[in-house]
Amino acid sequence: MENLLSHITTPTDLRKLSENQLPQVANELREFIIDIVSQKEGHLGASLGVIELTVALHYVFDTPNDLLVWDVGHQAYGHKILTERKDIFHKYREIDGISGFPKRSESVYDTFGVGHSSTSISAALGMAIASKINGDLEKQHIAVIGDASIASGMAFEGLNHAGVTDANLLVILNDNAMGIDPSVGALKDYLTAVKEGKNPKANNIIKSLNFDYSGPIDGHDLPKLLSELKRLRNIKGPKFLHIITTKGKGLSYAEENQLQFHAPGKFDKLTGKILKPENENLAPKFQDVFGHTLVELASENKRIVGITPAMPSGSSLKYMMEAFPERAFDVGIAEQHAVTLAAGMATQGLTVFCNIYSTFLQRAYDQVIHDVAIQNLPVIFCLDRAGFVGEDGATHHGLFDIAYMNCIPNMMIYAPLNEIDLRNILYTSSLGLNHPIAIRYPRGKGEIVDWRQPFEEIQIGKIQTLQEGNKIAILSTGTIGNNVSKAITNTGKSENYSHFHVGWIKPLDIEKLATIFANHSTIVTIEEGTINGGLGSIINTFATQNNYKNKIINRGVLDKFIEHGTVKQLFELTHLDQLSLTQLFIDINHD
Amino acid sequence: MENLLSHITTPTDLRKLSENQLPQVANELREFIIDIVSQKEGHLGASLGVIELTVALHYVFDTPNDLLVWDVGHQAYGHKILTERKDIFHKYREIDGISGFPKRSESVYDTFGVGHSSTSISAALGMAIASKINGDLEKQHIAVIGDASIASGMAFEGLNHAGVTDANLLVILNDNAMGIDPSVGALKDYLTAVKEGKNPKANNIIKSLNFDYSGPIDGHDLPKLLSELKRLRNIKGPKFLHIITTKGKGLSYAEENQLQFHAPGKFDKLTGKILKPENENLAPKFQDVFGHTLVELASENKRIVGITPAMPSGSSLKYMMEAFPERAFDVGIAEQHAVTLAAGMATQGLTVFCNIYSTFLQRAYDQVIHDVAIQNLPVIFCLDRAGFVGEDGATHHGLFDIAYMNCIPNMMIYAPLNEIDLRNILYTSSLGLNHPIAIRYPRGKGEIVDWRQPFEEIQIGKIQTLQEGNKIAILSTGTIGNNVSKAITNTGKSENYSHFHVGWIKPLDIEKLATIFANHSTIVTIEEGTINGGLGSIINTFATQNNYKNKIINRGVLDKFIEHGTVKQLFELTHLDQLSLTQLFIDINHD
Repeated sequence: MENLLSHITTPTDLRKLSENQLPQVANELREFIIDIVSQKEGHLGASLGVIELTVALHYVFDTPNDLLVWDVGHQAYGHKILTERKDIFHKYREIDGISGFPKRSESVYDTFGVGHSSTSISAALGMAIASKINGDLEKQHIAVIGDASIASGMAFEGLNHAGVTDANLLVILNDNAMGIDPSVGALKDYLTAVKEGKNPKANNIIKSLNFDYSGPIDGHDLPKLLSELKRLRNIKGPKFLHIITTKGKGLSYAEENQLQFHAPGKFDKLTGKILKPENENLAPKFQDVFGHTLVELASENKRIVGITPAMPSGSSLKYMMEAFPERAFDVGIAEQHAVTLAAGMATQGLTVFCNIYSTFLQRAYDQVIHDVAIQNLPVIFCLDRAGFVGEDGATHHGLFDIAYMNCIPNMMIYAPLNEIDLRNILYTSSLGLNHPIAIRYPRGKGEIVDWRQPFEEIQIGKIQTLQEGNKIAILSTGTIGNNVSKAITNTGKSENYSHFHVGWIKPLDIEKLATIFANHSTIVTIEEGTINGGLGSIINTFATQNNYKNKIINRGVLDKFIEHGTVKQLFELTHLDQLSLTQLFIDINHD
Repeated sequence: MENLLSHITTPTDLRKLSENQLPQVANELREFIIDIVSQKEGHLGASLGVIELTVALHYVFDTPNDLLVWDVGHQAYGHKILTERKDIFHKYREIDGISGFPKRSESVYDTFGVGHSSTSISAALGMAIASKINGDLEKQHIAVIGDASIASGMAFEGLNHAGVTDANLLVILNDNAMGIDPSVGALKDYLTAVKEGKNPKANNIIKSLNFDYSGPIDGHDLPKLLSELKRLRNIKGPKFLHIITTKGKGLSYAEENQLQFHAPGKFDKLTGKILKPENENLAPKFQDVFGHTLVELASENKRIVGITPAMPSGSSLKYMMEAFPERAFDVGIAEQHAVTLAAGMATQGLTVFCNIYSTFLQRAYDQVIHDVAIQNLPVIFCLDRAGFVGEDGATHHGLFDIAYMNCIPNMMIYAPLNEIDLRNILYTSSLGLNHPIAIRYPRGKGEIVDWRQPFEEIQIGKIQTLQEGNKIAILSTGTIGNNVSKAITNTGKSENYSHFHVGWIKPLDIEKLATIFANHSTIVTIEEGTINGGLGSIINTFATQNNYKNKIINRGVLDKFIEHGTVKQLFELTHLDQLSLTQLFIDINHD
């Protein structure tokens, strides 16, 4: 049989085929994705689940004139392949390659950049209203959103607004009962009941919000999808199509183990065996240091609880959910709720660990200020994925947290140097700080294999001296301090450099800083975050407010969004890698 | 008839009365509130609407052991009066007086500090889960939330979580079809249909989310409320009571004009006539400069649209809603949606003015970064109520926006000096900046009566010289520059001071700053916002990165939450008033 996909560069090519050729296209597309994703890291399950939908949408609608918004974008691999990016698809998530998410600067078919969930309805509604204002009444606007994403408050806000407009908007609920982890919440239970025929459709929630509801239909049945989309294309106003899909569809092991095959890393496509990287670093992931340490602490202290918004696996809160299910909560993609829930618990004397990725805490910024900090409730925020996250790119790096947390009164901020330091700040926080704290730590692994050491209390607000030298003081915060240590050694002139671990970004160790400024001619700040508002700015302000005249050099992330690439590449790009730091230190010493 | 309220200090006193005495208590409470609120500014309508509910809740439940959370808190005046604050109630919203909102530090009856909407369900659920963990299975947890607030995404997140717990939570929907302005959205339409008997209760949305739903009942019918609350007290798990109330209940003119009597200012309690302050400042409110200017711009440019999340009156977007209803949108209390809707519109070439109070933009921080800034969409954010808001206090001051916006790449930030400057930056932004911009301006009135001048384009990124002097450079941003100008004059030594208006906080005018630093020994930064991350930090970083050794002094808000008081008092408290600035300038000149 002739390969059809090889002849498809754009959706126009797809539309030249007959409807009965489309199942073949779907099969080829599925294989194309499996071939490539099995050989490198990427998101598999979501895209396999929407292959038929992807083909049907581009077949029925006039993309890119009609506007298609993919929520989150984990599902958009098939979309990318069908829209002019088949030949470069194998370089997805690589530096200078295409993004793992839809991205406006990459293609006219990517109508809206995504990454964080639950934005698609608002964005597509905005487009639909704009089309009406622009006098384009025939244009179609489609948001494809998963069942985990639609349970987030922002999606509800979009539906609530859309329902009172005459916008030409089609919301497609891709219901596979999964986000990255299984979906949770009352809406999910309700949708499950709808699927099982236990709820009368006529009164469903979506219809109550004034949408023209249809479904649920089988999202892998191409003829059904085509006929339903064609029907909906001709209905004006807000419409909602509920389709049922299987995450990982077409790959038995991925269907059976949907969580693992969300983003499996490399795997054997025939057997589904996950391939471990060679020479694997035996040190733990930071998230596991958090997860296991929390279980240890919680087994000693019955008032400890843990909260995650939809990241039990990614944050490793799953260990506590297994060990103490009555004290560990996955609240779904609901960061705002997660933070205020934590605040409510803290008022009743619980010790609350609220684990949210740095980039996602942006979603609950007001709740951090208004519900936690103003009331000075001692919630312990664990900001996983602080710094560069690598291949997920600009939408997911955790580079702003120091800046956006430092301006909040009552807030403490700590960035541990390594796994043991993380473990000890978790322990120290659990003893009671009388303030909220944000603990920021990176994605991935550290370097200390033997990390389960007895707990030691960390002194509040003290800078830690890692090395005493005589000329240049280097202030680093967080795990990048390890790059700094090696770079100092690499200069071959270690004696010229002092190195200080500014774990406590807030409160600042004013006394120690005074000594440091007095004893060194040059001060260097190093951080994995924006200098604007970050450690660099904080130290600069300390210096000017105290009238120090030392030369100060700030290294960190400049005022630009950083795209995707490996974490190593991004360190190089931002001159925060060992080699660049070594060169910097040598240059300063010569000045 | 003997006055009953005079014998009530705590809810225990209330509970000694018989049920048939409670309507009299309600009447007295209503009069007590009207007497006081008519003589000073404050929130009237919401509290009058829940008088019967307030009496019933404190009568039936064992407060403060049972935990009562009032959403937003505009409704909580009756609650405050019944809970030990009757004698000091007349000093609400005054400096050193009680807060206009529930506040934990003020009373054990105020279980959770509020101000921003839609937090109550999450907070009360957190308390309910905590009570279970603490082994207190009898404790009751009640969230009272309005119909405008429940339509916000965060409230949905709380309901969605609560519905899958066995938490002992009672959510009371106080449905009066109003927020500050009339409620909007599909959920509101749905609730209206429920009220009118057009929806079968058995299938309502709330029940779909797994709550034990009851209602709607008349929220002014005390016997009905008492019997229903007593029934619900004995039901375990998540419960939902829908009550219908009238905002401003019991005061005919307030019932008829609910928007005006939300917070009417002083009024004649017999006639309802609003009393204008004497010697009224004839200059416009900044919000009106925005509102009227936008109408002017929109009448010339058909691609201009305006968005407000539930503040058509407060932002004055109402003028555009009247003039161009098809291009002006009140999306309800949905800041996240508002921002991403704006982003979606901007992708289609519209010029979008998204007006959100500074404090409320905290609610859409991720959407600003992820949906607007990463994509560099030229959305024009108008941040009303930047700086001190006065009597609303810590929850509502707009003090963090410079810090939290400045770290975002692609973002421009401008703070106009006065009404004409605001008008011109709105005009300039409408011409197209190729970047998103945040325009921050204060609550209340300016000083320029004759503000409707012909538009002038503002040069991008330029510092404006207001006065040339020879020793000390004062850099101010925003309207506080007017205090600075007067303070300079008051020193009697104007010739020693240069004064620069740093309207553009981002991008920074590097060239001009270099000249300023070269020509002045001392630099003073002045801002109505946090120095941490604000203009002070920005200038400090400019100085250290460019190796300037000038003395730098930062004036702004220190790292503490600022409570309520008049704006004038808060300026004095933070040493940003004319007198303090004059003294500062004199002192520096003597150094």
